[in-house]
Amino acid sequence: MSGILYGVGLGPGDPGLITVKSSRLISGAKVIAYPSLAGGKSFARAIAADLISPQAEEIVMDVPMTVERAPAQAAYDIGAKSIAAALDRGDDVICLCEGDPFFYGSFMYLYARLAADYQVEVVPGVTSITACAARAGMPLAARNERLTVLPGPLPAAELRARIEGAESVVIMKVGRHLPKIRAVIAELNLTEKAAYIERASLPDELVCPLAQAPEKAPYFSMIILTKGADPWL
Amino acid sequence: MSGILYGVGLGPGDPGLITVKSSRLISGAKVIAYPSLAGGKSFARAIAADLISPQAEEIVMDVPMTVERAPAQAAYDIGAKSIAAALDRGDDVICLCEGDPFFYGSFMYLYARLAADYQVEVVPGVTSITACAARAGMPLAARNERLTVLPGPLPAAELRARIEGAESVVIMKVGRHLPKIRAVIAELNLTEKAAYIERASLPDELVCPLAQAPEKAPYFSMIILTKGADPWL
Repeated sequence: MSGILYGVGLGPGDPGLITVKSSRLISGAKVIAYPSLAGGKSFARAIAADLISPQAEEIVMDVPMTVERAPAQAAYDIGAKSIAAALDRGDDVICLCEGDPFFYGSFMYLYARLAADYQVEVVPGVTSITACAARAGMPLAARNERLTVLPGPLPAAELRARIEGAESVVIMKVGRHLPKIRAVIAELNLTEKAAYIERASLPDELVCPLAQAPEKAPYFSMIILTKGADPWL
Repeated sequence: MSGILYGVGLGPGDPGLITVKSSRLISGAKVIAYPSLAGGKSFARAIAADLISPQAEEIVMDVPMTVERAPAQAAYDIGAKSIAAALDRGDDVICLCEGDPFFYGSFMYLYARLAADYQVEVVPGVTSITACAARAGMPLAARNERLTVLPGPLPAAELRARIEGAESVVIMKVGRHLPKIRAVIAELNLTEKAAYIERASLPDELVCPLAQAPEKAPYFSMIILTKGADPWL
């Protein structure tokens, strides 16, 4: 009998925002797996650190931060092989995922490699979008409102067109794209409707009106824009 | 000193998908509050039932299911007064919210009434969109993909236009709008890319290709549509 691969969502960073189910799976894990970006520390592992048994085997996928996709793909290929080996000997593997596994998460690369041959269960987690909305005091959507989620790396013209046609907007992965995004929002005269949030739910969290956002944004930063009549901020 | 109002997200239905933080807040609550639709049982209370102390005071907001908004608004007015009375005497109030409090949740009506005068903390929860994606085995968004969330009650022409311009699409609150939504998706030749999910994470959950969806959908049902090259289902 092969083991089961669990992709467990850990939420945005505060360990209190891990679900009861993910918490139990991690505490009981013999084998855990997680990505580590560019040889640095793993954010996913840091969120779950207090739950991981010292006896657990840890499969670390060292994912390089390159523009070309091939090196990252190779890292997931190697990781998938190590995970498959643990599943083949009958162990379950708990793969740690920041936020939610199927929402801009790296788990989908493992899912694509392993779901055809092994039993995989995805345990959803709190996404950064609702965590940021909670911290900014900005409800995302009510009644028949639409919500659009846009990645910050999109070209300025596409961002502009998508924001113009939208109601509530969440812009993910702001990072080094902040000046471009800020300019687009200013052109649309929506700066006063926008909040900037970085590292939501962590001790060094920052929440402010977009107009007061810093010059440099970390990768884990977000802009929320609501066009409703009520400025919630 | 006034008490604090906590809006706690409970996730999609499986009590295991409640976060550790929400779980602790509910277990320790002296006063809880929740909506109950049209005199029926409260889904939010059912999700959290095992955590609620028998000694807890329960503020029930009996929200009528009418097309006009005034009767529901009146129910939230009355609920907000009872909550304010508890906060005024120094008790914290834990308001139970299905899914996430700021994502199509009724908590925002209480937030609008109470946030100016009382300390309010929103504890985010797992939304139905990532819970449904997990159960359908359909990653919602990767890399620079966009995600659009649409409410099922939107008119057919608007749904059609929004789906045409989108990448991944989640249609919430399908319910009695299923025939209209199904027709729009069929016209766009996207039926094979769509999954239907009802009551995700609950014992009576149903997950199937949209083509096999039942004739009648409950309120808690959703359609996920991904246009990517890989049919994940």
